[in-house]
Amino acid sequence: MKTIPSTLAEARARDAADPLAHARDRFALPPGIYLDGNSLGARPRATPAHVAEVVDRQWGESLVAGWNRHDWIGLPARLGARIAPLIGAAPDEVIVTDSVSVNLFKLIAAALMAAPAGRTKILTEPGNFPTDLYIAQGVAALRPGTILRTLPVDAIAAAIDESTALVMLTHVHYRTARMLDVEALTAAAQAKGAVILWDLSHSTGAVTLDLNAARVDLAVGCGYKYLNGGPGAPGFLYVAERHQARLVSPLTGWFGHQDAFAFSDDYVPAPGISRFLCGTPPIIAMAALEAGLATFDGIAIADVVAKSRALSDLLIARIEALCGDALTLASPRDADRRGSHISFAHEDAYALTQALIAQDITGDFRAPDLFRLGLTPLYLGFADVWRAAETIGELVRTRGWDRPEFRKRAKVT
Amino acid sequence: MKTIPSTLAEARARDAADPLAHARDRFALPPGIYLDGNSLGARPRATPAHVAEVVDRQWGESLVAGWNRHDWIGLPARLGARIAPLIGAAPDEVIVTDSVSVNLFKLIAAALMAAPAGRTKILTEPGNFPTDLYIAQGVAALRPGTILRTLPVDAIAAAIDESTALVMLTHVHYRTARMLDVEALTAAAQAKGAVILWDLSHSTGAVTLDLNAARVDLAVGCGYKYLNGGPGAPGFLYVAERHQARLVSPLTGWFGHQDAFAFSDDYVPAPGISRFLCGTPPIIAMAALEAGLATFDGIAIADVVAKSRALSDLLIARIEALCGDALTLASPRDADRRGSHISFAHEDAYALTQALIAQDITGDFRAPDLFRLGLTPLYLGFADVWRAAETIGELVRTRGWDRPEFRKRAKVT
Repeated sequence: MKTIPSTLAEARARDAADPLAHARDRFALPPGIYLDGNSLGARPRATPAHVAEVVDRQWGESLVAGWNRHDWIGLPARLGARIAPLIGAAPDEVIVTDSVSVNLFKLIAAALMAAPAGRTKILTEPGNFPTDLYIAQGVAALRPGTILRTLPVDAIAAAIDESTALVMLTHVHYRTARMLDVEALTAAAQAKGAVILWDLSHSTGAVTLDLNAARVDLAVGCGYKYLNGGPGAPGFLYVAERHQARLVSPLTGWFGHQDAFAFSDDYVPAPGISRFLCGTPPIIAMAALEAGLATFDGIAIADVVAKSRALSDLLIARIEALCGDALTLASPRDADRRGSHISFAHEDAYALTQALIAQDITGDFRAPDLFRLGLTPLYLGFADVWRAAETIGELVRTRGWDRPEFRKRAKVT
Repeated sequence: MKTIPSTLAEARARDAADPLAHARDRFALPPGIYLDGNSLGARPRATPAHVAEVVDRQWGESLVAGWNRHDWIGLPARLGARIAPLIGAAPDEVIVTDSVSVNLFKLIAAALMAAPAGRTKILTEPGNFPTDLYIAQGVAALRPGTILRTLPVDAIAAAIDESTALVMLTHVHYRTARMLDVEALTAAAQAKGAVILWDLSHSTGAVTLDLNAARVDLAVGCGYKYLNGGPGAPGFLYVAERHQARLVSPLTGWFGHQDAFAFSDDYVPAPGISRFLCGTPPIIAMAALEAGLATFDGIAIADVVAKSRALSDLLIARIEALCGDALTLASPRDADRRGSHISFAHEDAYALTQALIAQDITGDFRAPDLFRLGLTPLYLGFADVWRAAETIGELVRTRGWDRPEFRKRAKVT
């Protein structure tokens, strides 16, 4: 384990020795330091040409024949197979489709429908990412008898019982980056006969994941954060091979049918992961995600994880050195228990975030009092982090955020 | 009403006088005659630049700030407002989101959840577009007590009773283009206290629609057919203003929350149509749809409908003149009862379709015995239709499809 750089020169030396330094050229980065790749990944250099290939040439020249000629029909599975190694899954256990929210609905509902009689309860934690909670509420509203119970994550394992159908947890918390123990919680759920669903939105492409080793049942994840698929990119879902034949999503769209082009009246689910497709796949959006996934070509995920930890450790150390007690670390200090972003609490977190953005350092705000800084190893370096911390230190020292223009709220925060 | 051209010269004269002739330049059409815009609309000339603007400049330069700076957050509603005049709806009754299949699920489920006690039945017709049937089956599987009944469309009105929650019908049938009477069936449903949901996938942008005049309750429609949004473009949904406050989709994703960025644990639906959003909107796919919708700028939908009918009448007349009894018209002969495509039955319809494609005339096949020809008034002319019919006539005369290579089935038909 390398020590944390304690001078800018040391930070630059780490950049010079960084095995991922070349990956930065895979992105078209505007001026400034972008610490929000955990919200929306930066735009890969190759994306415009790849999207243009699909829009201009494939669609423009092949028209409807594109479905066969360019195998658009196979794109959801091809992209799933590219995500699989990032999460420790087999290629045919992952498919790209719909949004994270829609995929959550599919898997929550499928788990409830397949649960043995008497297992009607979903367990999750309060403060989980809102869409996870909302979607579980939506499933429960549609399916009378479903019980949705939230309780602190430390109490989850003990609360799993013979009435529990599903435990639904987020691996890396969107606010604090707190990372849960996938293996232990999966084992705890399964020991009591429940199924577990992990939301990997803030994990995939940034932290170590081995779903097969942990025998994870179900998972969903996001295409527009560390996978760099563009705003609102399609999400993905994972269903362990052993569950694929027994689970059916109620979102039984024609692309999940075993023979969609037979146009029969009765739904028969496709044999494998593609039964979790729903409507016609969004080919243009998938093309952008394909270019995003290509930013991981030839990259060892272990290098990504190691660099994420080192960048995060440096950011914490520098901010604490420069800001002292003015900011409170809201993320776990231990890198083993943390994802790839860092949050600090401050009563003026919103204004502070805006003031930083005015200096071309982009993080984001999470109500009521957090500012969040994402560390994306493919396009951030140690010197970037050093400079960002310097700017934050200066802002905090001068209370530079304390101006009306930085307090004006935008629609999206 | 103009007469049907009876010579190629007359067809050319109609093209010369066509008020929509200029719209063809809005599309980048490959060589050949494209009669499948009802499956996948052709690529507008403006799409590449518009998508590039969003991918290269908006995402590339603004990164996460794009949500505010380019008002990505408002894009689903802006696109909905552009679709509204094509279907006779108010701008705030339509929103672009997810796929047709997912939107069907939202509205079917919302209608069931809001139905008075005892109303648990969905009525639809066998042979409806498969995804409509499958999704209704999926909702019924998830919500015990739901009854899904299919019966011939002529028997639907009489079958609506006090147990009916929802009547779900497709306006223009995907196989035959048979067009139902929206006003009469909507009134029939409402007279018995039921709600009606229309699938407008094969209608929007091609036939006359006035949802408000017919007091339609709910509708969904497709972005990639006559709206030219590209392969797998997002769909749209319509909820009559009077229903918006009382219906809640169970797909309660965070973008449908009244204040998504408050990140609260409990779902509270947004006040208007945006409660029917679910996950993060797919901005790149929506950009392509925006360019597709722009192909209707300054176009009177009445001109589109008039030309659709005239092109269809010409196609039927010429094919029947040239093929006699060899082909059987499977679409209504009366243009008032027909959408914007024409189907003929033939035992070798698949091979015939392939043989036509080999001559750069693209229609499509619908199992077991239909070949389908779509008439898209924005980019097809009378001479195109004339030439397509000539080629079909020659193929039928010579049995030119009767070769092994035309019988080989592709994944997508």
